[in-house]
Amino acid sequence: MSLKLYCMGESGNAYKAALPLALSGLEWEPVYVDFFNGETRSKAFRKLNPMGEVPVLVDGDQVITQSGLIQMHITEKSGKFGGANPSEARDILRWVLWDNHKLSSQAGMTRFLMNFLPAEKRNADVIAFAQGRLAAAYGVLDAHLDGRDWIVGDTPSNADFSCCGYLFYPEPFGFERADWPAIDSWLSRIELLPGWRHPYDLMPGSPADRA
Amino acid sequence: MSLKLYCMGESGNAYKAALPLALSGLEWEPVYVDFFNGETRSKAFRKLNPMGEVPVLVDGDQVITQSGLIQMHITEKSGKFGGANPSEARDILRWVLWDNHKLSSQAGMTRFLMNFLPAEKRNADVIAFAQGRLAAAYGVLDAHLDGRDWIVGDTPSNADFSCCGYLFYPEPFGFERADWPAIDSWLSRIELLPGWRHPYDLMPGSPADRA
Repeated sequence: MSLKLYCMGESGNAYKAALPLALSGLEWEPVYVDFFNGETRSKAFRKLNPMGEVPVLVDGDQVITQSGLIQMHITEKSGKFGGANPSEARDILRWVLWDNHKLSSQAGMTRFLMNFLPAEKRNADVIAFAQGRLAAAYGVLDAHLDGRDWIVGDTPSNADFSCCGYLFYPEPFGFERADWPAIDSWLSRIELLPGWRHPYDLMPGSPADRA
Repeated sequence: MSLKLYCMGESGNAYKAALPLALSGLEWEPVYVDFFNGETRSKAFRKLNPMGEVPVLVDGDQVITQSGLIQMHITEKSGKFGGANPSEARDILRWVLWDNHKLSSQAGMTRFLMNFLPAEKRNADVIAFAQGRLAAAYGVLDAHLDGRDWIVGDTPSNADFSCCGYLFYPEPFGFERADWPAIDSWLSRIELLPGWRHPYDLMPGSPADRA
């Protein structure tokens, strides 16, 4: 039975799961979640995931939430992206935790505030504050990638797929690839992976649908 | 050789590591990091942890960062707090990831903004926005704990020690135990664990030192 990923194109957190699925060779299909009309707040969705978030992976009777755990499930099934040894696996989880704490959480929020909220609700102070925190995170990632092809070890891993979650999106949120040369090169390497697709090509739902 | 935890009392992220250390029975000692005078930005500290964050656990020649990974290391060494089976272990990690994404990251930031920034730098809009996001997170946690003693399974685990990271601190950041009855009872259960200590009693450094 094919894996089902509850997701929408706009979610970088969902992309963190969709991208390794796409690259793994596993059979999967996206199930569109209508976030912008409140589906993640609905009773039916909360029954699937009480945390009220995408992505959710359904594999037979297993329901898996949190992109970091979904990535581990993909690794268990495919043997890919989990590192060459236990030490690399731990280091991958270190970066996934850091990404959840410092990078994706802030980037997703800032992009939402700048692009998906009605203009009258946008608050310049909140955006500037979040961008300041993000600049520190980009700095940590850029310094780490300087001289490295991938975040952990010699091959792409869940660490890469977590940290890149929001960095391919076209909507402005203060991140400019040109400002971070090592991140820029690394994103180009990810784009060249066989089977790579942009979030809006990999999952249903994009701002164009609501234009 | 005793484990060394680089930390300071003010950090709920460090408390997430210090608390299971204290409850595990392992020998450990805190090493004070002078965050408020910029130590985490120093070259020496960045050599220890390029992410520039506490906590850092040093165990012989192993240096472990990210509270979620430090908790796993404590579990490996002590056999405690990691869940009764692989399914519980995954569920614990699910809550640790959620906490990093939605709870501690926001709570730590909001408490910092409201208490540790000079008054003239405090921004009411940023604080209100973060408090709104936090209320949603408290709601998810409170609903989950309603009818449960612990977040995962029948015993305290790293999920509990992660999610409670900022919730014992006295400085106001918009969290009131009385508003969330299930969280309140759960925090009381944690306080009753043999060996439990408040963050300011477990780690060096508190606002009182700078008063």
